[in-house]
Amino acid sequence: MFDLHKTALSTKARMGTLSTDHGTISTPIFMPVGTLGTVKAVKQDELIDKVKAQIILGNTYHLYLRPGCDIIENAGGLHSFINWDHPILTDSGGYQIFSLSDNRELKEEGAHFKSHLDGSKHLFTPENVVDIQRTLGSDIIMVLDECPPYPSSRDYAKESMELTHRWEKRGRQAFLNTSSKYEHGQFQFGIVQGGTYPDLRKESSKYVTDLDFEGIAIGGLSVGEPTELMYEMTDLNTDYLPENKPRYLMGVGKPANLLHCIARGIDMFDCVLPTRNARNGQIFTRNGYINIRNAKWKNHNRPLDPDFPTDLCSQYKMSYIHHLFRNSELLGLELASLHNLTFYLWLMEKVKERIANDSFHNWYQEKAKVLDTKI
Amino acid sequence: MFDLHKTALSTKARMGTLSTDHGTISTPIFMPVGTLGTVKAVKQDELIDKVKAQIILGNTYHLYLRPGCDIIENAGGLHSFINWDHPILTDSGGYQIFSLSDNRELKEEGAHFKSHLDGSKHLFTPENVVDIQRTLGSDIIMVLDECPPYPSSRDYAKESMELTHRWEKRGRQAFLNTSSKYEHGQFQFGIVQGGTYPDLRKESSKYVTDLDFEGIAIGGLSVGEPTELMYEMTDLNTDYLPENKPRYLMGVGKPANLLHCIARGIDMFDCVLPTRNARNGQIFTRNGYINIRNAKWKNHNRPLDPDFPTDLCSQYKMSYIHHLFRNSELLGLELASLHNLTFYLWLMEKVKERIANDSFHNWYQEKAKVLDTKI
Ligand SMILES: [Zn+2]
Ligand SMILES: [Zn+2]
Repeated sequence: MFDLHKTALSTKARMGTLSTDHGTISTPIFMPVGTLGTVKAVKQDELIDKVKAQIILGNTYHLYLRPGCDIIENAGGLHSFINWDHPILTDSGGYQIFSLSDNRELKEEGAHFKSHLDGSKHLFTPENVVDIQRTLGSDIIMVLDECPPYPSSRDYAKESMELTHRWEKRGRQAFLNTSSKYEHGQFQFGIVQGGTYPDLRKESSKYVTDLDFEGIAIGGLSVGEPTELMYEMTDLNTDYLPENKPRYLMGVGKPANLLHCIARGIDMFDCVLPTRNARNGQIFTRNGYINIRNAKWKNHNRPLDPDFPTDLCSQYKMSYIHHLFRNSELLGLELASLHNLTFYLWLMEKVKERIANDSFHNWYQEKAKVLDTKI
Repeated sequence: MFDLHKTALSTKARMGTLSTDHGTISTPIFMPVGTLGTVKAVKQDELIDKVKAQIILGNTYHLYLRPGCDIIENAGGLHSFINWDHPILTDSGGYQIFSLSDNRELKEEGAHFKSHLDGSKHLFTPENVVDIQRTLGSDIIMVLDECPPYPSSRDYAKESMELTHRWEKRGRQAFLNTSSKYEHGQFQFGIVQGGTYPDLRKESSKYVTDLDFEGIAIGGLSVGEPTELMYEMTDLNTDYLPENKPRYLMGVGKPANLLHCIARGIDMFDCVLPTRNARNGQIFTRNGYINIRNAKWKNHNRPLDPDFPTDLCSQYKMSYIHHLFRNSELLGLELASLHNLTFYLWLMEKVKERIANDSFHNWYQEKAKVLDTKI
């Protein structure tokens, strides 16, 4: 399913393709997040035609609660329900459950939790999150894990990792014992944990590798630790992961983070940042980021970047986009969300060009600095 | 500027074209409302390519307050500011001011009002609303009027009408004494008032006709009076309006209202209803209207009307649209707004076909009944 086409000069950056029954994904790739089966403010045809998205993400926890598995199954699965005939990855719900701090309890069998919507009680187990994702029918399903907070004591991180490992073993078995409910196949990715402890990260990389998932995610990072520490853990993890499996760094990040983590051997990313920040007026550009709500744009009567292929950049004056945001007009959210996602996917294309022509290592650090600059 | 091409058999329905420097409008027409220079939740290119909008409306009161005339003038006028190189009509602000009941005072010179945003004090006069709309650069500008509430006593309606008439005379003079600030020309429409009193309506129609505006609007209707009374007043007004001027019924209405008023000789409409109701989940279809939030759509796994050319109707399952609305997802607002406007413009095309082939009178009453039915 994963073909590694090239490893970059002087960095661990890689290019490959991940083949699913809903299409082939060219890595490194960023996956727009569609929590409830919709990438907020962006239409499905725009995701294809404008953003050039190759795969989107859905959240198992949210979809399980709303609209619920029965509705999605009746509709013929998530692809059919949301009218998206391209790859989908769903998480396991683990991360969302562990964000419910007071409303969840971990037991050996799984995670008991109360819905954030109505307080109703539920249990996710390594087995039933496989079943749920079989019903969703996502192309890539994630195994149930626990994501410890930062900071965590070594003891807590170790116990949590060991619980995750036991859950992953059960989850992998459940996956192997079941099959797809629809006409397309599914892959399952494991998740490496271990907090910010190098020896645990190393142990977890090896353990998860041995379970022979179709891909491996790095979890538990981008949860509040310093950026440099996130880079270090990522770097260490990929040293112990097999070359022939795709590597997915969960929940990362800003454009600069993507470049640094690609240099450390990551193939796949997801994050709500480009769409959430778009709704707050943060726009990413080739020359850095801006906040369109800032008064400096009030009378700026030119497009932001006339040669960049989004409507926000090339069609509209910044004064108008500023006006839309200052007045909470929906069009502002739409244009900014569409723009930021297009920018993220554009950046992945640039990365691939650079890897292909062996210039990535000379380029990414300087580029990351520029992208991280406020204009 | 207005060419009357045909008057229908047995009804007062008409077909014509209204030529502006930003393009020709084929009537009867519905004008989507873009209060702050954006038709809520719909992109400008979608208005052209999907809705097939020929002209949009902006609100002088709102644009004057936000972003303000200086910003729009610096941007090169409203067309340039909002990136819309097609016709625009702006109202005079009169209707909005009269909605501010406690925060406005009418004097002979004009309307004093306090901003609903910050309480700041302003004065709109028949002359300065011409100047403001010269700065906006809309293709069609409206004269300042007073819009009396329903019900109003005959005395109040008469005095209000007479004030409006004096303002219209001054406003017309101000228009004739000034010229466009940009490269395109502008037209000015007068407004007929007179409450729900037939003799006043008749008097106002004649008075406004004599001022020789480029078009004539019927104001003061759709403000709470019974629908039948609105139809009666419209019917009476058009009897006293010249054949060779376009007639614009302000603030109307539901699809059925449009058909009945076209039969009574109206050429142009505007209303926030299709977009506002879209955001509340009301969807207009060829077979009546639905509320997508209703539980009956929760498990309805088919498109609403596969042959209707909107994404909402043809691409998505109703269960998904229902899910989007139940979860306040922006995509729902976008799809529904785009759909309802497309439906309104589609309806105007059907009307024109019917007038052209002399079957409008046999069709519109039955069709209005169907469109007004809740599915
Ligand atoms: Zn499929
Ligand atoms: Zn122009």
